[in-house]
Amino acid sequence: MRILITNDDGIGAPGLLALAREMAELGEVLVVAPERQQSAAGHGITLHKPLRMEPMSLDAPVVEALATNGTPADCVILATANGRPEPDLVVSGINMGANLAEEVLYSGTCSAAMEGALLGINSIAVSVAEYAAPIFEASAAYARQLASRVIEEGLPEDVFLNVNVPNLPAGELGAPVLTRLGRRRYVNELDRRQDPRGRDYYWFSGEPTECDCEPGTDVAAVLAGNISVTPVHFDLTWRGNNGCLGALIGEPEE
Amino acid sequence: MRILITNDDGIGAPGLLALAREMAELGEVLVVAPERQQSAAGHGITLHKPLRMEPMSLDAPVVEALATNGTPADCVILATANGRPEPDLVVSGINMGANLAEEVLYSGTCSAAMEGALLGINSIAVSVAEYAAPIFEASAAYARQLASRVIEEGLPEDVFLNVNVPNLPAGELGAPVLTRLGRRRYVNELDRRQDPRGRDYYWFSGEPTECDCEPGTDVAAVLAGNISVTPVHFDLTWRGNNGCLGALIGEPEE
Repeated sequence: MRILITNDDGIGAPGLLALAREMAELGEVLVVAPERQQSAAGHGITLHKPLRMEPMSLDAPVVEALATNGTPADCVILATANGRPEPDLVVSGINMGANLAEEVLYSGTCSAAMEGALLGINSIAVSVAEYAAPIFEASAAYARQLASRVIEEGLPEDVFLNVNVPNLPAGELGAPVLTRLGRRRYVNELDRRQDPRGRDYYWFSGEPTECDCEPGTDVAAVLAGNISVTPVHFDLTWRGNNGCLGALIGEPEE
Repeated sequence: MRILITNDDGIGAPGLLALAREMAELGEVLVVAPERQQSAAGHGITLHKPLRMEPMSLDAPVVEALATNGTPADCVILATANGRPEPDLVVSGINMGANLAEEVLYSGTCSAAMEGALLGINSIAVSVAEYAAPIFEASAAYARQLASRVIEEGLPEDVFLNVNVPNLPAGELGAPVLTRLGRRRYVNELDRRQDPRGRDYYWFSGEPTECDCEPGTDVAAVLAGNISVTPVHFDLTWRGNNGCLGALIGEPEE
């Protein structure tokens, strides 16, 4: 059993360490992770600069740990390229902060799991819904239990699991529930500042204004204290065509 | 009529200029684009560093042109934040090189259009299937025709159009056809080299090995010389649940 671990918080993040220790109970663990913070990296891959991999020493019983200057998706490609044995499972995380609703589109944590699924490998993304003082014990324990089931039973083709765990001690954590992605809308705000040389710069500072947080969504599950597990695919073709799009794009009639 | 143009090849790219000139025939054009090449940036947004915007002078009749140090998705947020009037249309491109099949997941060109759609704005991504010597006349002319229809009729909610144009002169170009995204699988290869100080570095160099390039796919349409138009959504919840996933994740039975 060979398990690849990556993340987007960087190879030194405590969530990765907690995950690596639990996964080492299931099999051989290989860590390939960004050398630094890559949050909201999206599903980027690096085509225009060379990539580096440096061996690291981690405080967890792993077979190998490599830090890279690439994105989370790069890490999965680096770990599986050039005839390296393919892992039985990719686990990405544990991310500090939830990856809910359309955050999945921006999340480096999720894009690593998506890259795993694109390569035909069973993959899981795990996040804990807290930035400041995350508790990793419960989420790491659940990740191990889920990983073990996934390795045994497999996942549907081209699907990965996106797991979000409320930041609660194990005893207070609700049951895992299957969810769909919620949907939020943001009012985009820029915080405009001036550098010491008088030039403007900007920070994004938008907050969600509307939310599809109905029961059944990942957002609702986490708010209710449950572990949210969403099956995520990447078939982006919209199939709701109402018959009018052909005319709109100028497609010749048959 | 207000049209926002962005891309991932950078604000100086000839494809952006060709697009801006055509779109200026339809209305006011605002350009907000990366200051440099951002290909394969994915759907990243920039949370961990400040963003800059610098006015640029472009050889096209645009109202305003701003170069940013952000990603293509950042550009769309920057262009619509802080109460700037919302554009009627976002057009991203014209990209040098096709964005077909799962390339949509990695493409900065497409992620800008997706960001537009996330904000509720009609959006189009346009690419021409040639890196070395792209012809932009035919693709820019089609983009203008399509943009005009989209502004008039609108797109389905949460859907953008991904357009790929073969690199042919207008007279040889086939008709536009509605397509679905194809699917390719890559064997990941790393080209390993040594820098002058003897340290290894790597370039990605994989090629696709398998391809769902059946009739009906974007890949097949472009190979046949047709303009491919794919409606793309971003509802990533997999809804094919066969009833077994609940047990797999440990969901309690009702």
